[in-house]
Amino acid sequence: MIDHTHDPELKSWVESANSPGAEFPIQNMPYASFRRAGDERVRLGVAIGDQVVDITEAFGTGSMQAVMEMPQEGRVRLRQRISSFLARHARGSETFLIPASRVELLLPCAIGDYTDFYASIHHATKVGGMFRPDNPLLPNYKWMPVAYHGRSSSIVVSGTAVRRPWGQIVEAATGPPVYSPSKALDYELELGAFLGPGSTMGLPIEIKKAEKHLFGVCLLNDWSARDIQAWEYQPLGPFLAKNFATSVSPWIVTREALEPFRSAVPARPPEDPQPLPHLRAASGAYRIMLEVWLRSAKMREPVRVSQSDFSAMYWTLGQMLVHHTSNGCPIRTGDLIGSGTVSGREKHNRGCLLEITSRGREPLELPTGETRRFLEDGDEVILRGWCEQPGFRRIGLGECRGVILPAIQAASETPPKESTVARNPA
Amino acid sequence: MIDHTHDPELKSWVESANSPGAEFPIQNMPYASFRRAGDERVRLGVAIGDQVVDITEAFGTGSMQAVMEMPQEGRVRLRQRISSFLARHARGSETFLIPASRVELLLPCAIGDYTDFYASIHHATKVGGMFRPDNPLLPNYKWMPVAYHGRSSSIVVSGTAVRRPWGQIVEAATGPPVYSPSKALDYELELGAFLGPGSTMGLPIEIKKAEKHLFGVCLLNDWSARDIQAWEYQPLGPFLAKNFATSVSPWIVTREALEPFRSAVPARPPEDPQPLPHLRAASGAYRIMLEVWLRSAKMREPVRVSQSDFSAMYWTLGQMLVHHTSNGCPIRTGDLIGSGTVSGREKHNRGCLLEITSRGREPLELPTGETRRFLEDGDEVILRGWCEQPGFRRIGLGECRGVILPAIQAASETPPKESTVARNPA
Repeated sequence: MIDHTHDPELKSWVESANSPGAEFPIQNMPYASFRRAGDERVRLGVAIGDQVVDITEAFGTGSMQAVMEMPQEGRVRLRQRISSFLARHARGSETFLIPASRVELLLPCAIGDYTDFYASIHHATKVGGMFRPDNPLLPNYKWMPVAYHGRSSSIVVSGTAVRRPWGQIVEAATGPPVYSPSKALDYELELGAFLGPGSTMGLPIEIKKAEKHLFGVCLLNDWSARDIQAWEYQPLGPFLAKNFATSVSPWIVTREALEPFRSAVPARPPEDPQPLPHLRAASGAYRIMLEVWLRSAKMREPVRVSQSDFSAMYWTLGQMLVHHTSNGCPIRTGDLIGSGTVSGREKHNRGCLLEITSRGREPLELPTGETRRFLEDGDEVILRGWCEQPGFRRIGLGECRGVILPAIQAASETPPKESTVARNPA
Repeated sequence: MIDHTHDPELKSWVESANSPGAEFPIQNMPYASFRRAGDERVRLGVAIGDQVVDITEAFGTGSMQAVMEMPQEGRVRLRQRISSFLARHARGSETFLIPASRVELLLPCAIGDYTDFYASIHHATKVGGMFRPDNPLLPNYKWMPVAYHGRSSSIVVSGTAVRRPWGQIVEAATGPPVYSPSKALDYELELGAFLGPGSTMGLPIEIKKAEKHLFGVCLLNDWSARDIQAWEYQPLGPFLAKNFATSVSPWIVTREALEPFRSAVPARPPEDPQPLPHLRAASGAYRIMLEVWLRSAKMREPVRVSQSDFSAMYWTLGQMLVHHTSNGCPIRTGDLIGSGTVSGREKHNRGCLLEITSRGREPLELPTGETRRFLEDGDEVILRGWCEQPGFRRIGLGECRGVILPAIQAASETPPKESTVARNPA
């Protein structure tokens, strides 16, 4: 529902929110969990320009979880209240602001279950062809949003360094595996979606109600070790190739903020089979532009490596949720779903190095003259995202950053502190 | 460590614990989370004969989670204290007892992540041959305990009815899929293991320390819809075929109680490759006998369908934990791992109907004259388990029960209350 909170003319008394390039104008208002310096309490914040509103103090709401659990109508009302608070300055309002540079951003919430989809047909076709040249796109792909369960315990917030994993790797085609640090470490550009109200076990969610369960979106980097993946993934799917780390951006852009940015056109070509009735999309996909930037240890500034459009995915978030619950599997507030690598048709739309370099055969050239087949120690990967639509204010998703730390020397070494597990706030 | 709590001559003042067939003698003392009638508070209990000791009241411990987090030495001391409490009657001790029939048993704890292994080579070979006749056992099988992530939100405690799931099924080899109730619903007999102290992200667990992270075991039924599985599982593994429900028994038999029941002999034949150094088993597998019983709606008493020995698994629980963290993936207190279907070499050792009936081709005959290819509505599956060893008292794992409810008529129908999601107690 579009309302006055989406009015592109609306301005805030927080001046930094009104500058043309601002990621967080008053039309956006994404949520994060944060701590103030010297205070252990986890608070709920809203980003406005370069400031954070302490929503817990200003509105007396509980944690992120409490807002996520609200039915859609409650979330809309809270958005309207926060918009009014930021549009018209009242005496003392500024006491609830903290410069964003002075807060510690945390994982948004306690994540119960994390599910990763595979919803880009361009990614599935290209990667499928590498692992199965004779059979790149499997027969089920156009009938269901294929997915697998991921690992909640290794989800970390943007800024957490990621240690190169060890794993079983087959180096010679016929030789035995060795246990060694991965030599084919990759990122995957994904959109993450945090779920709001949960569902009842045994009861599928209907497509026309699916988006009521969608709280909001973030950037998600599904770090992947391709050499571990190639050896382990048959027959039960990816496991240790993925579960050493998954990074998410701290700011959740709500479903309400995304409402103006819808694609009218389905991504599915007319010659493809129509989805089964329960999976027929009830509304257009969200148009979210996503980018990957890479900075090696030698580079001062990152360089853009790819760009893609979330609305080009073969399946929508609503279809993913319907499929996920189509067998009665219950979802819970705070669950996270990943979209799968967001890749498009063209070479500059490829959302991971595996695709960009064709499994390392065509290295990527960096401005420093360095080349990359896969990630090297010290490389930093930065995901960015935003939405644009004529007649509406541009809104940003912020950033999801992670730098690669060298592998530990041996399993008995204690790694440095920066790679310890980021705790869920709840 | 074997100590006086394992002495087979030790008796309890709770007389029902001393009868020869008792599942819960004083040598066992498994933990469960429970509620007393009319009281919402979740308590920690220990089973003794047909009674439950309210450990929260008697010992002032917190929840199950608090005990799970204890280092191994703390758990051993608590076991010794509870053993003394139950061995020598003190005035008023009986006020902490409640008949087991009068408590509500809950899921043991809040389960963060659930991982399901595939550690029976007999199961993997037989089932692999059905899905891939040319390639039953994949090359990685003898090198790593293959696993995939499962779903925490649909784990329910024994006694919770399980609704037949809907899903996408391909009925004719070349036809499109249909969305319909599963016609190939199965159980899988597994051992579950709850984890104690967690590990640090980035830091693999060494094999000689692995069992310190093992809190205890339960029975686990990994309900599976084989028709949904066959269509969906490529390339990312099982998803909706499994995540509609997983049942666990409420009583966790601790690692300390299991200590006398070790196999000296590795299950791995000498001609097979030796595991890589980090995966070389440091101790023998636990010898736990497991059984499946089936009762159709027409039967008064269940009939035993299979029996198998957990120590015949190709990989031990310690090896599973080491592999799981070998890439730095952190484990958290309360995580659950499933062993995979526990099948042995012989026909009567097959832990699921898919194996017993060779994918439905050789139906199982029941004493009523009924036959089963897969489960029918009203069928109840009962898992049982115990440990026996000369010189020690037999201990039981209790039961894990679940009855099959008919599928809902359509996705918009609200299912009856008994199939709503069982909440985690924490």
